[in-house]
Amino acid sequence: MEEMSFLKNISLLGATGSIGRQTLDIIRQHSDYFRLSSFSAGRNIEETRKIIKEFSPKLVSVLEKDDALRLKGEFPFVQFVYGEKGLTETALFSESDTVVNAVMGSVGLIPTLEAIKAGKTIALANKETLVTAGHLVMRAAQKYHVDILPVDSEHSAIFQCLQGENSQNVARLILTASGGSFRDRTREELRHVTREEALNHPNWSMGAKITIDSATMMNKGLEVIEAHWLFQMPYEQIDVILHRESIIHSMVEYQDHSVIAQLGTPDMRVPIQYALTYPERLPLPVTKRLNLAAIGSLHFEEVDFDRFRCLAFAYEAGKAGGSMPTVLNAANEVAVKAFLDGKISFLKIEELIGKALEWHTLIKDPDLESIQCIDRETRRFIDSLL
Amino acid sequence: MEEMSFLKNISLLGATGSIGRQTLDIIRQHSDYFRLSSFSAGRNIEETRKIIKEFSPKLVSVLEKDDALRLKGEFPFVQFVYGEKGLTETALFSESDTVVNAVMGSVGLIPTLEAIKAGKTIALANKETLVTAGHLVMRAAQKYHVDILPVDSEHSAIFQCLQGENSQNVARLILTASGGSFRDRTREELRHVTREEALNHPNWSMGAKITIDSATMMNKGLEVIEAHWLFQMPYEQIDVILHRESIIHSMVEYQDHSVIAQLGTPDMRVPIQYALTYPERLPLPVTKRLNLAAIGSLHFEEVDFDRFRCLAFAYEAGKAGGSMPTVLNAANEVAVKAFLDGKISFLKIEELIGKALEWHTLIKDPDLESIQCIDRETRRFIDSLL
Repeated sequence: MEEMSFLKNISLLGATGSIGRQTLDIIRQHSDYFRLSSFSAGRNIEETRKIIKEFSPKLVSVLEKDDALRLKGEFPFVQFVYGEKGLTETALFSESDTVVNAVMGSVGLIPTLEAIKAGKTIALANKETLVTAGHLVMRAAQKYHVDILPVDSEHSAIFQCLQGENSQNVARLILTASGGSFRDRTREELRHVTREEALNHPNWSMGAKITIDSATMMNKGLEVIEAHWLFQMPYEQIDVILHRESIIHSMVEYQDHSVIAQLGTPDMRVPIQYALTYPERLPLPVTKRLNLAAIGSLHFEEVDFDRFRCLAFAYEAGKAGGSMPTVLNAANEVAVKAFLDGKISFLKIEELIGKALEWHTLIKDPDLESIQCIDRETRRFIDSLL
Repeated sequence: MEEMSFLKNISLLGATGSIGRQTLDIIRQHSDYFRLSSFSAGRNIEETRKIIKEFSPKLVSVLEKDDALRLKGEFPFVQFVYGEKGLTETALFSESDTVVNAVMGSVGLIPTLEAIKAGKTIALANKETLVTAGHLVMRAAQKYHVDILPVDSEHSAIFQCLQGENSQNVARLILTASGGSFRDRTREELRHVTREEALNHPNWSMGAKITIDSATMMNKGLEVIEAHWLFQMPYEQIDVILHRESIIHSMVEYQDHSVIAQLGTPDMRVPIQYALTYPERLPLPVTKRLNLAAIGSLHFEEVDFDRFRCLAFAYEAGKAGGSMPTVLNAANEVAVKAFLDGKISFLKIEELIGKALEWHTLIKDPDLESIQCIDRETRRFIDSLL
């Protein structure tokens, strides 16, 4: 087999977020293989400056026009764009062949769809893209013969476990869940948990929104829907198991009852790098080698769907299909923000999501405009309940 | 990808042993895919009769000429052969395309080499073939473009974990070991263990020789040598970890520190079937589905090479290479037989092996005749010490 001898030009959407920074770390580790040709950031202009100085990209997008103009004054040889349009221009940058989509929220959808149409490989860390528009994204990916490579540790694990196998031989996908910050609390105790407690995730260091999603297990619910689309697997063949150590990142059971699992220390740089090197692998000396003997034991438990109602809602919305996952996602985004802003209690998050799912009337095969409209409507609906 | 639609004709060497019987069970489960065209048995003529009646093979080999003649009288339309020559004729049976080599001991070597030369796919359960003549077998397999498919659960696990991957990206192979019947005993306690205690393996139901090898961990040592040859991996990149539940059957660590593992309930029919269906898979409803939540936890420990001296001897012999693994294997066979016959104590097994390794003068690249000669010499040497 051949050695890796390529240079990949990367467009990184969301460079200053958690996944974005770790993607930059991979590019930094392997400057022979990867070049950052364009990236987007939000309002963190200080970090944007540093990234430009270190990686010399050709195009940069920020959220505000003023920031773009100011940066242009400082870096005259870099092209600057801004806003949602700038995000899509970053994804479409002609010199890049791979788009790493690491933005948060539903704003990641249109850049993904446009990049697919432009034939670019997508390394996808933005869950909402598949959750709200999985049917459109996978249809486009098939039409334009584009690979959608998962960056999430669970989906990367499943993707790795499927290599060299015939997907028709898969019996089920088994997503592992750490259970998040509150896995050892009773429902009664959950009534009084604080924002600070929720943000204290036992295994992974991540952004605030995803850490809360991990505590409610909505994170796992969104992953179930994402897995449904990425691997074209019915919900009946996607299971979740609690595994507090987060060492087994996920598994695939085949029809002969052989189970293939992917393991490692919790470090997002491994799945990020795999998405960039796939189907090859490169060394990653900065990450800690797995030492199972030092860990000693791995634990597994059934998921309690009464305890984790958000996960049950996600299965429900996923099975209903159509516009329902969009409602699930939008309601969750607004509710989590309200919790982070101190406006509502922790258990109110799931209550609001439940209400949104009840309120919405399903649309079977929504197009992009309908999805965006339902997304806005749902946000307004949740706002009206706050 | 395509559906499986083939009929494989199988020559089964060692049909009445533990692996042989489970291979027959797989053929029985999938009569649309597999046909037993020839098989060998030893002295168990009653079981041989039953297998002939159920599977209607065209050629059968037994150990004794008298038995072959008697069976010919009963089954005039079946061809009968006998002895070591008969074993090779079974492997070479013209209508078979796959040889399952499930005989015990070094008698499995020549039929394997001959079947490779005849271009047949080899499903290998006979450890001694690779342990004593790995260099000859792999050289022949390359020359005749023949697949050597592992049947052992650990090697099958590694083989499954390597699918779709570039072998140059492998950092190390990690073989799991249950620790056998005596994993919780101190060395002092091992002085007084009985044959009956040794034969009581906690996880796997296997033959007597391999159960003792499991208790001494020589079994794992032979597997390390086998893995070295099968996967062309230096000994420095083959590790063993204690894992008492035998749920993770083995693992592969890649250079990005991603670890792929194969899991399942302990059932040899899974790796046997995989060797027969590879690269496809078929359902195997008779085996128990893995339920990690019901198992609850998996445990891992470092191997204590002072406690398991046979494993240290195996690494030593493997690294020395040449004729040394033949000495290791022959000394072990005789010593284990002496223990099973009640002639020596449990710890005497490793003592005799250690003496044989010291006594022998290494031959670098032994041919088949040298291997057979060293095998006989070693057996005589151990006999002289009994």
